[in-house]
Amino acid sequence: MSIMETPCEVEKGRINCRIARNNRSNAELEEYEMLQARPRGVQPAEDPSALSVVDVKMYNDLNKADHHTEKYDNPNLIVRRGQEFTIGIVFRRPYNPQTDNVALEFVIGSNPSPTKYTLITVSLGKSDQPSSWKGRILETGDNETKVGITPAADSIIGLFSTYVTIITEVMKKRTKRTSQTDFYVLFNPWSPSDQVFMANENERQEFVLNDAGVIYSGVINNLVKRPWSYGQFKHGILDACLFVLDFGGMPLQYRGDVTKLIRTASAMINSQDDDGVLVGNWSENFSLGTAPTAWTGSAEILLSYAVQGGVPVKFGQCWVFAGTFNTLLRCLGIPARVITNYSSAHDNMGDLRTDIILDEDGRVDDNLTVDSIWNFHCWNEVFMQRSDIPAVYSGWQVVDATPQETSDGYYRCGPTPVKAIKEGELSYQFDASFVFAEVNSDVVFYKQDRYGRTRLVSTNTTYVGQLIVTKSVGSTEPEYITDNYKYPEGSPEDQTTMKRATALGMRRFRTTQPDPDVLLQLQASQQNNYNISLIFLFTNLSKETRTINLALTGKVDFYTGSTRSVFKFFTQSVTLDPLQAKQGTLIVTADEYRAFVQGQPFLSFVMYGLIQETSMYVTDMEVIHLDVPPLSVEVSGELKVGEDMFVTVKFTNTTDTDLNDVTLRMEGTGLLPVKVKTYSQISKGSTVKWIESVTPQLPGPKLLLACLDCTFIRNLCGQVDVFINPDSQDD
Amino acid sequence: MSIMETPCEVEKGRINCRIARNNRSNAELEEYEMLQARPRGVQPAEDPSALSVVDVKMYNDLNKADHHTEKYDNPNLIVRRGQEFTIGIVFRRPYNPQTDNVALEFVIGSNPSPTKYTLITVSLGKSDQPSSWKGRILETGDNETKVGITPAADSIIGLFSTYVTIITEVMKKRTKRTSQTDFYVLFNPWSPSDQVFMANENERQEFVLNDAGVIYSGVINNLVKRPWSYGQFKHGILDACLFVLDFGGMPLQYRGDVTKLIRTASAMINSQDDDGVLVGNWSENFSLGTAPTAWTGSAEILLSYAVQGGVPVKFGQCWVFAGTFNTLLRCLGIPARVITNYSSAHDNMGDLRTDIILDEDGRVDDNLTVDSIWNFHCWNEVFMQRSDIPAVYSGWQVVDATPQETSDGYYRCGPTPVKAIKEGELSYQFDASFVFAEVNSDVVFYKQDRYGRTRLVSTNTTYVGQLIVTKSVGSTEPEYITDNYKYPEGSPEDQTTMKRATALGMRRFRTTQPDPDVLLQLQASQQNNYNISLIFLFTNLSKETRTINLALTGKVDFYTGSTRSVFKFFTQSVTLDPLQAKQGTLIVTADEYRAFVQGQPFLSFVMYGLIQETSMYVTDMEVIHLDVPPLSVEVSGELKVGEDMFVTVKFTNTTDTDLNDVTLRMEGTGLLPVKVKTYSQISKGSTVKWIESVTPQLPGPKLLLACLDCTFIRNLCGQVDVFINPDSQDD
Repeated sequence: MSIMETPCEVEKGRINCRIARNNRSNAELEEYEMLQARPRGVQPAEDPSALSVVDVKMYNDLNKADHHTEKYDNPNLIVRRGQEFTIGIVFRRPYNPQTDNVALEFVIGSNPSPTKYTLITVSLGKSDQPSSWKGRILETGDNETKVGITPAADSIIGLFSTYVTIITEVMKKRTKRTSQTDFYVLFNPWSPSDQVFMANENERQEFVLNDAGVIYSGVINNLVKRPWSYGQFKHGILDACLFVLDFGGMPLQYRGDVTKLIRTASAMINSQDDDGVLVGNWSENFSLGTAPTAWTGSAEILLSYAVQGGVPVKFGQCWVFAGTFNTLLRCLGIPARVITNYSSAHDNMGDLRTDIILDEDGRVDDNLTVDSIWNFHCWNEVFMQRSDIPAVYSGWQVVDATPQETSDGYYRCGPTPVKAIKEGELSYQFDASFVFAEVNSDVVFYKQDRYGRTRLVSTNTTYVGQLIVTKSVGSTEPEYITDNYKYPEGSPEDQTTMKRATALGMRRFRTTQPDPDVLLQLQASQQNNYNISLIFLFTNLSKETRTINLALTGKVDFYTGSTRSVFKFFTQSVTLDPLQAKQGTLIVTADEYRAFVQGQPFLSFVMYGLIQETSMYVTDMEVIHLDVPPLSVEVSGELKVGEDMFVTVKFTNTTDTDLNDVTLRMEGTGLLPVKVKTYSQISKGSTVKWIESVTPQLPGPKLLLACLDCTFIRNLCGQVDVFINPDSQDD
Repeated sequence: MSIMETPCEVEKGRINCRIARNNRSNAELEEYEMLQARPRGVQPAEDPSALSVVDVKMYNDLNKADHHTEKYDNPNLIVRRGQEFTIGIVFRRPYNPQTDNVALEFVIGSNPSPTKYTLITVSLGKSDQPSSWKGRILETGDNETKVGITPAADSIIGLFSTYVTIITEVMKKRTKRTSQTDFYVLFNPWSPSDQVFMANENERQEFVLNDAGVIYSGVINNLVKRPWSYGQFKHGILDACLFVLDFGGMPLQYRGDVTKLIRTASAMINSQDDDGVLVGNWSENFSLGTAPTAWTGSAEILLSYAVQGGVPVKFGQCWVFAGTFNTLLRCLGIPARVITNYSSAHDNMGDLRTDIILDEDGRVDDNLTVDSIWNFHCWNEVFMQRSDIPAVYSGWQVVDATPQETSDGYYRCGPTPVKAIKEGELSYQFDASFVFAEVNSDVVFYKQDRYGRTRLVSTNTTYVGQLIVTKSVGSTEPEYITDNYKYPEGSPEDQTTMKRATALGMRRFRTTQPDPDVLLQLQASQQNNYNISLIFLFTNLSKETRTINLALTGKVDFYTGSTRSVFKFFTQSVTLDPLQAKQGTLIVTADEYRAFVQGQPFLSFVMYGLIQETSMYVTDMEVIHLDVPPLSVEVSGELKVGEDMFVTVKFTNTTDTDLNDVTLRMEGTGLLPVKVKTYSQISKGSTVKWIESVTPQLPGPKLLLACLDCTFIRNLCGQVDVFINPDSQDD
């Protein structure tokens, strides 16, 4: 049950039912409010010379251009806090600042209170008073007076209602609430006094105003670029984002605080605990909803959630949670980006260790191995000032909406300063130790012997968190941001970080056993015919002969590193002369693994070798992401506002199997709503082509993208960037 | 839906279904485990000279006395971690350390793993190996070998199963699981290496082993001492406490970490979000359950929750949450106490301000006043080392299980170091700023004028958090611990704390307006005839005449400070000569308020004065807790084990109203289970007497307590401490 549904009855003595949590029910202020006693029911006589309001103009176009909100497909005014906007008040007679007493009242929520900043009164004229929002008269014409209103730099964000109130000695008379004068207040990265201020205009364009992007997946050696339509300006999305906060029961009075807002939102994007937006599903059965790999963007998800009044949408995995969260953040004006951490350690709270347990033969024991290393994991970063912890930790903050294993049973993460992760300062709120483990865990290999005794085999300190990337500003190329999170492995700064972190309770496994005198390096690559070539290189550092009993486990993995099936186990003995380096090759044919691959095609190989002479061990592991046939998206036609153009999505099944129940999804950011087509079969060797015609309404750069999804192939998308020219007749 | 019910299906790819979260389903290890290949189905031939196990002795009495666990009414062994206990293994032939290979295996949860410390193998004899738990042979007799086992100092706590395993070249042969060799591991405040180590034996006796206590309520000038039976040793309570963790889905692998365990438990004691133990109810309608004021202790609550398999128990308010949480903490071996903060600020996140809004006449405007000051609020403190934040913050930590308003929508609080509150170091996890506001908020009075403009009237910086108390060690007298939380108001250290806190985002209201030149002090006291005497003292500091228009609001409040009803509004004008002090008196008769009082009898008075000459304001407020007739508990008889004794609970209705639907509850810690009696009416002037006979089973100090509850009188308890002598025949 979400909090907003808590029955008020049992809460009565706690007063909190009066805390407004819903932006869909702003209070209506009374039209007439008597200031002197007067018999009930007697309407005040209208004084023909009295001031009265004929119209209130919100100057949408002017204000929206000033406030960088013109892209929102929304009929109401949208402004950013801490920045002036213009309201025009048309009176029946000219306004006289010396004698007339006029106030603007702005209301949010059902129990507006001046001390909670949910009822803001800005006075004009003689009865001036301090207010958190500033007002000034810009221009007084015959009948229209233009007023400049500046919401406080820390104002609550959301939908406010506007009242113009004329105050006389005996009464207040207000305009009636009309949705036309409702307006949205958003965060303001353009304002230096805002908690989310961002100085660089290119960065603001990217992290606040870019409504499309790419999310990286795949593996370190084979980055897969998945296009994603954030769609934060699409019709209904702003209201849907506010609905998420409403449904999460977030008190309106706290909605000006970025930290609190994103912490609530990170819990609300996933459905765990609170009927949030997205249901996670890491199985292979998505028959009750849409496969996480099939989505082209966030808008479809957020709209479905809001339209159905809070029914969680099926299904998400990490990039869907991160993509949807990114839309909410950018939509509300918080600079945000999606990042990808390759080889991300999970299920790992409070120690810096991911355990892999081998059985006596060197085979990965999937029953005993509980931890996993996700091949990749996506989360969000937001750019903000932190006021609740020392100022040095301002800047990019990790927030993560994917429901994870957390020891304390709730599903949210962050904001955590990226800088605190780098420095190992894990005692500051929120959840730093969890993020630290994701990028810094060691992989520890154990072997369990016949007596049930586990023995440490080897430790890999570099495998986890090898690469952290995000989309570059202004391009879809990756920006490598590993250095934001980590000092170089083994550097003095890295050692200081590790020392600090372990002093704060992170348990790091450190062995006292000497390093083995043989090195092992495993490399895997996909060949054109879908076979996998494995090269393992042994280097004997000793001046004696070494004999190695090696064991290789080949597995098909989920992207979470969890084993789907083991398809190969191979053992061999290798003898090395003193100081010899020796290379072995093993070809794994497509036939060996094909039957086991489904979904995102991750194959992982774990190699283990026992050095007979020293009874020591060497290990290495490698993950590859199989290439899949491409999905092409092309456009033809005039690419001009008002002219028909054609989008062609094309796919040729070059795999050696028929594809069944294939879903194709197409979306154009600012161009085309989501369209879905299904094919019961795309047989081996055949090609499908889907052509849609579009008539662009707005000029500028647009992204067209499509994703293909079926049980056999997941995470396959294509995209094309287009520029729509203005209608020539307008020139 | 609690986490343990999450269907595994959709989680498959995330592996976390294998994370054991339930201590009621320990894995059964196989009786025979082949170490060499052997045709299926062929049972190993029994070698008559082979070692085999006849019996495993847990030495309950010996071990429980050593481990301070003999008070638990539980048939199984209970030990504390980091301390050795003795197990006896009876073999069919003598054990030979040189040739026999024996291991003890201890298992917790359904997926025991050596790397998660849920499967611990302690080897005896030839194949020794390092283990987090230590084992040694204490004594080898003819057939019985006594083994000393020391669980790791950071061991998981909970119920472990014991296996004795004999290992030969070809197989392992284990004893079968039997509940007789299951044993509990608890936290160990007696062990210097434990996170909950407490050096002082008197403190350990109080904060871990005392199963009864008092919880303070009432108001600062009239502390009400409510007895509470923690009952952590009662039959079934230890299992109920582990059930709470199970039902909260807390992974077993984290249950050795005190910080994580209490954070989970603080969320699970209340039913919000997670179907936890207690349903909060602050209304006056408790017809669907037991009134929070009616409980005599925690055992009834925890047992009901566990027996019904996780159905939240109705109803709780803060002392019930704190009392029940205290039972869980002490039961698991964590030093804990219940504390009471008088005038506790609430609904107050991120600013240090509680707003009271007066209307134009000086009447408290209950519609606009959203914040509240609880007359008292109870929470828990636990004593522990913090390893996740700098070590200086170890010691007493605040944890609070009462569901509060939190900005981020979840209901848990802490652990927060008391020291961090005192120093204003609010950036360390967890929830420090919330606790800081509870004890440090300023009360800010506003007045709203006819134009809807709010004007600051005055600020009271000392009202909130005036007094913090807990039960003293070894007595029921209060220990005043305000100094643990706060430096003296206005001292240089206090100013440093406030500066630090405001630098970390706490917003403190500071006015630039000068202090008024008139002082106001309000005092309220109950007289013998239930009338209230109000004394207000004005002191004119100026050398001019001052005329004050004063307004007094008299209200009946809930204990949460929320208004139940306003019964009096009184205005008067007072003129003061230069430098004159003048005292006024007002008698509020019982007739004026009687009809409005229900439940806990809190009356509050807010006085406000406008100084005509300066247009400045003075304010003061005072809360009183009405005295109620006493409930007496007396014993008669021999007070000896095995002899009948009698408990008499007596109540005379000296109020001037008939009491209807009265519930009486009686409980004796270690003496008498909870007994409940109801009276349809106790008429004005009449006396009820309830006598129960008891035959004590165990000697030592005991507490007998009773509570009376009805709509008109709540929070009325009586108690008597008795000492039961041992049975003389035993001497």
